[in-house]
Amino acid sequence: MKIYDWPTGPYPARVRIALSEKNLQSCVQFETINLWKGEHKTASFLAKNYSGTLPVLELDDGTFLAECTAITEYLDALDGVPMLTGRTPREKGAIHMMSKRAELELLDAISVCFHHATPGLGPGVELYQNVEWGLRQRDRALRGMHYFDSVLRNQPFVAGATFSMADITVIGGLIFASLVDVPVPEECAALQTWYAKMQERASVRKQLALSS
Amino acid sequence: MKIYDWPTGPYPARVRIALSEKNLQSCVQFETINLWKGEHKTASFLAKNYSGTLPVLELDDGTFLAECTAITEYLDALDGVPMLTGRTPREKGAIHMMSKRAELELLDAISVCFHHATPGLGPGVELYQNVEWGLRQRDRALRGMHYFDSVLRNQPFVAGATFSMADITVIGGLIFASLVDVPVPEECAALQTWYAKMQERASVRKQLALSS
Ligand SMILES: N[C@@H](CCC(=O)N[C@@H](CS)C(=O)NCC(=O)O)C(=O)O
Ligand SMILES: N[C@@H](CCC(=O)N[C@@H](CS)C(=O)NCC(=O)O)C(=O)O
Repeated sequence: MKIYDWPTGPYPARVRIALSEKNLQSCVQFETINLWKGEHKTASFLAKNYSGTLPVLELDDGTFLAECTAITEYLDALDGVPMLTGRTPREKGAIHMMSKRAELELLDAISVCFHHATPGLGPGVELYQNVEWGLRQRDRALRGMHYFDSVLRNQPFVAGATFSMADITVIGGLIFASLVDVPVPEECAALQTWYAKMQERASVRKQLALSS
Repeated sequence: MKIYDWPTGPYPARVRIALSEKNLQSCVQFETINLWKGEHKTASFLAKNYSGTLPVLELDDGTFLAECTAITEYLDALDGVPMLTGRTPREKGAIHMMSKRAELELLDAISVCFHHATPGLGPGVELYQNVEWGLRQRDRALRGMHYFDSVLRNQPFVAGATFSMADITVIGGLIFASLVDVPVPEECAALQTWYAKMQERASVRKQLALSS
């Protein structure tokens, strides 16, 4: 399998962490697509992923899978022992809800802030910016941090009792937030403590070494 | 189980169609939350779903599941015979990718257009609007229709050979698009033909009768 990748990107980080949790790193080759040069907006890349974003997983039969959630579902199902996306209906539901919420209220919000309220990938790539919207999304992400803090005051992981895709999505959000200089507010002690614990995992530590 | 619902809403439609495909309608009670009165932004509803959106599924043990994708995962897993979210890793990956893409490039884009570039739910609910962003998202949704048209020229369903959650998400997008008066462009013949075929399904027909 092959991954179209940007090594320090917060979304590709989600897939790298998942690969590492599933011990699948050695099954995958990485090909770097240079975001700063806009290589993800060329016709040949858009044919692989209509939305023009990284990461994309290419399967050995030539199928392209984009979207971190979809790639994680695929990787987690490969060995028939899902550990990131849930086993029971209730686990699946909770993990998908919390991962989606982590996108809406944190990771995607920070991403919009980056692309719209900062220089983003530079004028050659950011052909349209809406600063006001970007700033609104930054505020949304800050509220999101407080929300996840409140969740983590009552349970050890984002979707409940075990580590899952939802934790990985929040980690992606915090990686991106630190790149955009939106640090976790000091009063979010439970979120801070959880993040410190996440960094004890080899999968996360390795990625953070790469991202920083 | 109980669903917090808005009967004509395009997102609740996704869950109603899924319930009907899985023959689970009789297991669920519906409670209407009045969007036009902003009942989804009250503290008591936000405690059920932080993001303040419908639908929300309440399980018999009191768990709340928000997000259509998560609710669909849950419902589809209940009987151990997933038919909407995929069986093999490749099916799961493709369905999640296409459903997410249908959100990003169509349904969510139209939703943003509704809330930002039209009066939306009215001044009492739409406390902040960004018209320019809303219009951009309308254009994105129109491009999305052309994209899904190109997909459906080559395969019978949005994620491949069988009906899935991804079809339901595109249906939600087209329901919302018709409410906001962004019709499917005439040249998108494959998308039109597919939509006509979808309306032959009892699950979809019933929902469209409700939505229009
Ligand atoms: N919804 C996508 C988002 C991926 C995404 O935004 N990736 C970033 C890289 S970290 C990207 O490609 N950004 C380039 C751009 O948006 O121009 C996913 O979950 O995979
Ligand atoms: N991401 C959510 C979106 C749900 C959504 O936007 N639902 C609409 C009802 S059709 C809503 O609650 N809109 C009210 C609002 O955004 O103020 C999902 O997939 O369930």
